[in-house]
Amino acid sequence: MKYLKKKTSFLDISIFAIMQNQIKSLQNDKIKFLTQLKEKSRVRRKEKLFIIEGKREIILAIQGGYEVTQLYYCPSIINVKEVLSIVTTFKNKVELFEITIEIYQKLAYRVTTEGIIALVVSKDTSIENFVLPSKNPLILIAEAPEKPGNIGALLRTADAAQLDAVLIADPKTDIYNPNIIRSSVGCIFTNNIATGSTFDIINFLKKQKIHIYGAALQASVDYHTQDYTQPTAIVVGTEATGLSNSFLENTTQNIKIPMSGIIDSMNVSVAAGILIFEAKRQRGFNN
Amino acid sequence: MKYLKKKTSFLDISIFAIMQNQIKSLQNDKIKFLTQLKEKSRVRRKEKLFIIEGKREIILAIQGGYEVTQLYYCPSIINVKEVLSIVTTFKNKVELFEITIEIYQKLAYRVTTEGIIALVVSKDTSIENFVLPSKNPLILIAEAPEKPGNIGALLRTADAAQLDAVLIADPKTDIYNPNIIRSSVGCIFTNNIATGSTFDIINFLKKQKIHIYGAALQASVDYHTQDYTQPTAIVVGTEATGLSNSFLENTTQNIKIPMSGIIDSMNVSVAAGILIFEAKRQRGFNN
Repeated sequence: MKYLKKKTSFLDISIFAIMQNQIKSLQNDKIKFLTQLKEKSRVRRKEKLFIIEGKREIILAIQGGYEVTQLYYCPSIINVKEVLSIVTTFKNKVELFEITIEIYQKLAYRVTTEGIIALVVSKDTSIENFVLPSKNPLILIAEAPEKPGNIGALLRTADAAQLDAVLIADPKTDIYNPNIIRSSVGCIFTNNIATGSTFDIINFLKKQKIHIYGAALQASVDYHTQDYTQPTAIVVGTEATGLSNSFLENTTQNIKIPMSGIIDSMNVSVAAGILIFEAKRQRGFNN
Repeated sequence: MKYLKKKTSFLDISIFAIMQNQIKSLQNDKIKFLTQLKEKSRVRRKEKLFIIEGKREIILAIQGGYEVTQLYYCPSIINVKEVLSIVTTFKNKVELFEITIEIYQKLAYRVTTEGIIALVVSKDTSIENFVLPSKNPLILIAEAPEKPGNIGALLRTADAAQLDAVLIADPKTDIYNPNIIRSSVGCIFTNNIATGSTFDIINFLKKQKIHIYGAALQASVDYHTQDYTQPTAIVVGTEATGLSNSFLENTTQNIKIPMSGIIDSMNVSVAAGILIFEAKRQRGFNN
């Protein structure tokens, strides 16, 4: 995280002394670094930093306890007053940079709206350090999920159900992938997320005496016949290959959604939604 | 449909006399026409034709009663014997064309696999001519759906639930959009689909005395408190704007999924899946 140490010009919110730094070149080192953070999972992991685009997402991250260290804004898209109104919600100091529209469009997906990008410190999501917020948790586990769109939809469902945790086993990408942030509409910041190997996550669940329901056809029963009012983890695999043998050998019970069509191939986030909300229904929609 | 009339060289399946036509130029009129069908909803509607890519999807369409009039295959991707094995499942005669890999890649999304594209006659999906296959139907209605990915996921859920019909009110694109075909993994061909204006679809439902449950927050009750064992239509709108006033004013009851998160924004196909499978659960998963 050596990049973070170059804190030469801070905005001191308390006295609103804004030191504006203008960046006009795509060749600027900071911009090159942000581009790498946008594109490379390896760089995000090594630097323990990532970027967030958009006011709403940045505010959700702040509310979710994330630390924003730098803000880049494009004045031809976003008003500086609006940028300052965001800054006042921060608990820490933040460096502020004005960038050109050309630079913004290199960094952003929504190239003509928002106009603001934050440099943010990653959280440690490792399962070793994870503490469940409830004694009778309802948890979603996604094993080796691949498509950012599916991960985003799972996180949206998990937020709506106010699940106690979303665990990602054997992740194929880091969770701060810009496509995941975008497709989750910010739910990446509102969920309790932990990641780890399938082995470590199974150990975690067993230690906590949590019932493991694997969405799988093998040796399965219809999902609505089971009782999810006890500590419950619902596990879904990929659409292509389903759950790994490691998970299948460690489930309390495998469950399936009775299907009667010709193709019988539901989207994984739809299937997870059906299972999660059956559990919610049984729990009277209380948390 | 004048293009169809140029049936100069047919494959007579009964005697397997294959008249092979080779097309080597991207400028060939047939290839230009297929490209237009791929790209332009207007052309698909006018010609009442569309294209399907991939063996599995073509077979599903045949099983779903669609008429394939021409097959284009690329021998460097698919074996001619495999093409013939598909042709033998057809009830009608079909023209067969060999195309180069360059042409195939212009027409296909999965440019290195499959190797086969069909020219197919559209079905009349208008609600005026639609007949429900059941006296006690369970129907999904999507009003003005926009994203092909969401439509595909809805159709996959509808297939798995073996719904009696999927009605698309005020469609924003024709259902034979290649992105919808692809994201539905062929479920566009296994569902009973009808389309029409919101006005016509409401009239259809009212005539058939079908209860209309609109997914909406306005004047709504929790979804699981309602009885879906009678003739039921579940209606979902777009994620951005929800249901139109026309639908809201004509629902039997508006229903909502109780949400307790921070963002509470579920993917529309996930929400539809939860509602449909609650209805399926109440109906004992019988059709």
